[in-house]
Amino acid sequence: MSAVINCVAYAGGQREQAVDIADICEVLQRPGRFVWIGLHEPDEDLLEQVQAAFGLHDLAIEDAHRAHQRPKIEVYGESLFIVLRTVQMNGKENKIEFGETHFFVGLHYIVTVRHGSSLPYTDVRMRCESTPHLLKKGPGFALYALMDAIVDQYFPVVDALEHQLQALEEVIFGESFSRETTARIYGLKRELLEVKRAISPLIDICNRLMRFDLEVLPPDTRPYFRDVYDHTIRINEMVDTLRELLTTALEANFSLISITQNEVMKTQNEVMKRFGGWAAIFAIPTMVAGIYGMNFQWMPELNWRYGYPVVLTLAFGLCLGLYIHFKRSGWF
Amino acid sequence: MSAVINCVAYAGGQREQAVDIADICEVLQRPGRFVWIGLHEPDEDLLEQVQAAFGLHDLAIEDAHRAHQRPKIEVYGESLFIVLRTVQMNGKENKIEFGETHFFVGLHYIVTVRHGSSLPYTDVRMRCESTPHLLKKGPGFALYALMDAIVDQYFPVVDALEHQLQALEEVIFGESFSRETTARIYGLKRELLEVKRAISPLIDICNRLMRFDLEVLPPDTRPYFRDVYDHTIRINEMVDTLRELLTTALEANFSLISITQNEVMKTQNEVMKRFGGWAAIFAIPTMVAGIYGMNFQWMPELNWRYGYPVVLTLAFGLCLGLYIHFKRSGWF
Amino acid sequence: MSAVINCVAYAGGQREQAVDIADICEVLQRPGRFVWIGLHEPDEDLLEQVQAAFGLHDLAIEDAHRAHQRPKIEVYGESLFIVLRTVQMNGKENKIEFGETHFFVGLHYIVTVRHGSSLPYTDVRMRCESTPHLLKKGPGFALYALMDAIVDQYFPVVDALEHQLQALEEVIFGESFSRETTARIYGLKRELLEVKRAISPLIDICNRLMRFDLEVLPPDTRPYFRDVYDHTIRINEMVDTLRELLTTALEANFSLISITQNEVMKTQNEVMKRFGGWAAIFAIPTMVAGIYGMNFQWMPELNWRYGYPVVLTLAFGLCLGLYIHFKRSGWF
Amino acid sequence: MSAVINCVAYAGGQREQAVDIADICEVLQRPGRFVWIGLHEPDEDLLEQVQAAFGLHDLAIEDAHRAHQRPKIEVYGESLFIVLRTVQMNGKENKIEFGETHFFVGLHYIVTVRHGSSLPYTDVRMRCESTPHLLKKGPGFALYALMDAIVDQYFPVVDALEHQLQALEEVIFGESFSRETTARIYGLKRELLEVKRAISPLIDICNRLMRFDLEVLPPDTRPYFRDVYDHTIRINEMVDTLRELLTTALEANFSLISITQNEVMKTQNEVMKRFGGWAAIFAIPTMVAGIYGMNFQWMPELNWRYGYPVVLTLAFGLCLGLYIHFKRSGWF
Amino acid sequence: MSAVINCVAYAGGQREQAVDIADICEVLQRPGRFVWIGLHEPDEDLLEQVQAAFGLHDLAIEDAHRAHQRPKIEVYGESLFIVLRTVQMNGKENKIEFGETHFFVGLHYIVTVRHGSSLPYTDVRMRCESTPHLLKKGPGFALYALMDAIVDQYFPVVDALEHQLQALEEVIFGESFSRETTARIYGLKRELLEVKRAISPLIDICNRLMRFDLEVLPPDTRPYFRDVYDHTIRINEMVDTLRELLTTALEANFSLISITQNEVMKTQNEVMKRFGGWAAIFAIPTMVAGIYGMNFQWMPELNWRYGYPVVLTLAFGLCLGLYIHFKRSGWF
Repeated sequence: MSAVINCVAYAGGQREQAVDIADICEVLQRPGRFVWIGLHEPDEDLLEQVQAAFGLHDLAIEDAHRAHQRPKIEVYGESLFIVLRTVQMNGKENKIEFGETHFFVGLHYIVTVRHGSSLPYTDVRMRCESTPHLLKKGPGFALYALMDAIVDQYFPVVDALEHQLQALEEVIFGESFSRETTARIYGLKRELLEVKRAISPLIDICNRLMRFDLEVLPPDTRPYFRDVYDHTIRINEMVDTLRELLTTALEANFSLISITQNEVMKTQNEVMKRFGGWAAIFAIPTMVAGIYGMNFQWMPELNWRYGYPVVLTLAFGLCLGLYIHFKRSGWF
Repeated sequence: MSAVINCVAYAGGQREQAVDIADICEVLQRPGRFVWIGLHEPDEDLLEQVQAAFGLHDLAIEDAHRAHQRPKIEVYGESLFIVLRTVQMNGKENKIEFGETHFFVGLHYIVTVRHGSSLPYTDVRMRCESTPHLLKKGPGFALYALMDAIVDQYFPVVDALEHQLQALEEVIFGESFSRETTARIYGLKRELLEVKRAISPLIDICNRLMRFDLEVLPPDTRPYFRDVYDHTIRINEMVDTLRELLTTALEANFSLISITQNEVMKTQNEVMKRFGGWAAIFAIPTMVAGIYGMNFQWMPELNWRYGYPVVLTLAFGLCLGLYIHFKRSGWF
Repeated sequence: MSAVINCVAYAGGQREQAVDIADICEVLQRPGRFVWIGLHEPDEDLLEQVQAAFGLHDLAIEDAHRAHQRPKIEVYGESLFIVLRTVQMNGKENKIEFGETHFFVGLHYIVTVRHGSSLPYTDVRMRCESTPHLLKKGPGFALYALMDAIVDQYFPVVDALEHQLQALEEVIFGESFSRETTARIYGLKRELLEVKRAISPLIDICNRLMRFDLEVLPPDTRPYFRDVYDHTIRINEMVDTLRELLTTALEANFSLISITQNEVMKTQNEVMKRFGGWAAIFAIPTMVAGIYGMNFQWMPELNWRYGYPVVLTLAFGLCLGLYIHFKRSGWF
Repeated sequence: MSAVINCVAYAGGQREQAVDIADICEVLQRPGRFVWIGLHEPDEDLLEQVQAAFGLHDLAIEDAHRAHQRPKIEVYGESLFIVLRTVQMNGKENKIEFGETHFFVGLHYIVTVRHGSSLPYTDVRMRCESTPHLLKKGPGFALYALMDAIVDQYFPVVDALEHQLQALEEVIFGESFSRETTARIYGLKRELLEVKRAISPLIDICNRLMRFDLEVLPPDTRPYFRDVYDHTIRINEMVDTLRELLTTALEANFSLISITQNEVMKTQNEVMKRFGGWAAIFAIPTMVAGIYGMNFQWMPELNWRYGYPVVLTLAFGLCLGLYIHFKRSGWF
Repeated sequence: MSAVINCVAYAGGQREQAVDIADICEVLQRPGRFVWIGLHEPDEDLLEQVQAAFGLHDLAIEDAHRAHQRPKIEVYGESLFIVLRTVQMNGKENKIEFGETHFFVGLHYIVTVRHGSSLPYTDVRMRCESTPHLLKKGPGFALYALMDAIVDQYFPVVDALEHQLQALEEVIFGESFSRETTARIYGLKRELLEVKRAISPLIDICNRLMRFDLEVLPPDTRPYFRDVYDHTIRINEMVDTLRELLTTALEANFSLISITQNEVMKTQNEVMKRFGGWAAIFAIPTMVAGIYGMNFQWMPELNWRYGYPVVLTLAFGLCLGLYIHFKRSGWF
């Protein structure tokens, strides 16, 4: 797959033609045009070409090449450099995958540089082309459309995390928790922190896009960035709520472990009482029998006619008495 | 039920006539008039009609149609778009139900769009119509009356949550807690977070309504929005206090579980001591009896005249001694 | 008791005369005068009279009548409306009681409206009258004197809470804690949160009084409000410190419960070891005696001359050996 | 000891003469002079003299007399009133002792009022006198020198607290913790909160001293106050780090208590298994012996020639079998 | 090793010549030159020479000599004094080592003073010399290059801490935790707090470097300091995430300790049930045998022909019955 996904010139919001990167300067000499370039993990050569075409800053190009940046916005004169983190659920493993998209936005161009896991922006481009009256606003509108698409990808991810929490709640309060429950709570916390780190700088980025007084962001694009801002705030709030619930869930889980412990202990107590009680009951006739098994010459009871039944009756009577006693005091 | 609940024109604070949405433009040409429209889950067509009548922004109309927004305020030129979350106790199931109301407010109109669980605003409208000297201030005052009604609905909900906490406190400190107590604490926390998320953005919204310098919000409406602001702050403080108490309650519950554990353990200890003590007491005569049950030829004691009573007395004397010993050392 | 506690006109800081509320307007026509009115839970009629006399805002009058407001300050043109929460220790039950005082302050008047538990402000008035050179500054100084008195009432309350914490500390670290200790920690937390909610808005209120540029608050009253501000900050800090200590106390209490548990367990272990050891010691002679109690015809030992003493010695020797073994391994 | 520790006039940074408080006005009439007065717990009379000499505000004098203020800074026209909390380790009891120093600083004077535990500022004065080129800057520089000395006293205190934490860590992780450990953690927390409360207002005080545009603080004193500011920030950070570590230590201590509990339980389990196993081993020959001790007439085994050794061998063989079984299953 | 590591004059971004500190003034008289001096733990004499050459402030020189400062930035007229904390993994002991570097930056000079553990900046100097078009910007660029190198040293340290956490996670969730695990969590927390304290003041320092309007920091160096700022923010976020995860790990560890406790208890319960059950089974024939071992004269069963086998069968039948009962009720 080539690193240049798309490179198209637009005039008055209408797709004009696909352009070769080498011809960009020429194309832009005709007035009212802007170029929208989509790159995917470009090499240094390609980035240098792009840098040359639009006069981009060394540090921004270095960032776009190296990737692994945190989301940020930087203004270089009249042009913008924006870094966003994209997010996606890996369907098979149910894991969150992060990627990065870098934007260079100027009066006559918008360049996107994708890194890592992320969907191509072909859909966004098509949707923009279908509303030329909006795309006519220039690269600023394209930037909005792309940011909107990126932020919208966070909703299914946060929903998935919410479902994981709900599943955990059922496990925790359904008496079936185990060592694994704690590990899952911890894992969920880790994922939440990562999503938080990816999304929270966007609040500030949108805020500044709504306030910048640059030609590339005409005033009528502001409501659009405010829209992205609102979505970002909502995702942030969802993540924060999840985080606080998770903390409470961890504590609740802990106190339920302790309650289970209490229950186990109570069972233990009952087992011990029952065991102790029966031991006492058995001990009496055994002791009595031992006594009358002694070989003393002078043991008058042994010669009595009813010695045997009387002793037996007494011993087992005592057993019965004990049994009733334990029954009454709740031991049995 | 039609989606248009009400559509009335007012002149000088007085109800003038019910209007059809199609005739709004005509009505508004006469000076000093404004229209108050109440919609309930309108379809796209109806919203487009309204949009056309007042020139509303695409993004706002899209929000009003899709719903599921977080509370927010947006200024489009001279008009306002406000989203609030409404709240209600579902009497039967004792559950909190959330709804949404969207407001479009301009110099000559106020449109409310209700979604989900919420009461109609017919009462608010009637109260406003009964104070024409206030309603004369225009749509800004109607906005206040509606927001005031929405915020007032939060008080019974927060009160209900406070009662739930008090009920939980009684359970926790009344020694009758169980697994379910923890689940209820967690559930209450979840509800509090939802209420918090619904009410807290209102602080900022009211704040901005008090500060905006728009013709639609004449200066003499400011004390009214400050009033709503105060109520919002109070609800927020109540929710925060509940949240902090709940956290403490969870911890207190936990440490009471542990105290119960200590008590169970102490009981266990006592059972064990008692059991062990009695086992020792029984063991002595049993052992002694065993010894004198041996069949050795030469066992002089067996032939003694008082061997039997002496041995028995000694054995049971030892038992008594042990019993007294255990009694004194607190085992029995 | 009448709702009008006091209504006095002052000229040049000197008490001039008691006035009837109906005559206020007349009195104020003479220059250099101001009126200080003290009300206690007034009815609607009285409040309307006052409203008419000084031209107060509807919403403020509504608040003053309904009470149950949070502390706040509002500016209506040149006049102020302030709500404060008063606090008092109920001596008998050692419980905190809250009240509310509302202030209307204008260039020529100060009206106080007391609700709920609170002391009358007669003392404050007398102290002011004894320093006419200060009271000459006008209603602004009277406001300071009243606020100072209200804030000073918080100190004994916070001191009482501090003593409660110290008493709890002694219980917790003095090994005598119980279920009730946890309940008391929770109760203290609840009270602290209530005091916090009553006092913390005062920081902002004082701050604004120090900054307002209103004729009713001449610049030379600022150091006085700064004084109140300092006291408020100190109370807040004391409450926050208490809150943090309380949280730590709850945790410390919890971990001491666990230590007690460990101690109980160790005792249990020792009981078990001792019990087990003695059972083993008793089991040996019992078993040996059993063996020589068998009735086999051919058991040569039975016929030996010293069979009996040898066997006995061996059995009890074994017992002694075991006893020494257990003693050495720390079981006994 | 007199309340006036020192009262000296300085000219051009050089010590000129000791002055009597009554003569201050006279001395100050000569230009380029300032007076540095050190007081210790002065009575009302003395303070009134000082107030008269420099025209100080009533409220500040009241504070300086009553003490028990929180650290603060107040500007009265061109003069400053500053309250600081001093700190000292009581060497004998290893306890922290707090004091208070109040400063009145004007163009031609600096007055220090010490309360409670604190060292006299004679050393500071001497150090200042030895650098007349700096002291020439006036009372502002003297203020810096005194504040610097006060803040420097916090370092040994925080160091002592750090050592206490390290000693606690050794106890906690060295398996020798006890009930007292928890009490010591709590006590350390209490002390930290007190130090925090004493030092943290200093950040704001220094900040304002660096920003004030007053003649008494010439611009070239700013780097000096920034120096004090840096020290204050460092002490604050040290206290905050200690606080966070202490919280973690409390939790770690708690979880180690639980681990100890697990260990005790495992020991208990082993004791129980061992005990149970031996009981089983002893039970077999005892039961067998009992059976052959029965007195039935027809028990053929009793008459067999090798009945006795066979039965004994079988019984003890079974015991050995059990022993090996328990050994293998890890019970012994 | 001499305290002067390097002292070189640069002209137009090119290395001109090594200079002796004594000759600096002379060298700087030629226009367009700046000097870059690298010192390592210099003595007072050397620092005074440097102070004299560039007219540095007493307090800054004192700081640079004493070291043990927190990271900070100070502006003295047109020159800057910056303190940073450097960090390094000690390869052998896997411990974090901190050092300090102080910077004096003016229009024509940059002086670095290293203290404690830190690498020399020879590499940085060489990299700068290899890009003369950038070094031409002057001491401001050299400052950026040095700060960038210092901040980059934090990444491997934070990575090492992340690996330590991952190792701990495996231990915690892999059922093999012990007392040492808790000690390691605590140790990691301590290290994180130290790193946090070293890096977090850098956010503010970079922020101010980006905003200062000083000749020594020309506008085209701003993107470079923004780059350092971004790295600092990233390290901070990583540390904060680690801290939050660590707190959760401590709690998770704790609740797993409790789960282990539950498991131990359940085992204990089973051991007890098994033990109790077998004791009961053994007790029956023992008791029966005891009874028929009694020596009463009149015990008819003893004379029955099949007394012995019947009694034995009955006794062991009962045992079997009990065994089946226990088996069914899950005791065995």
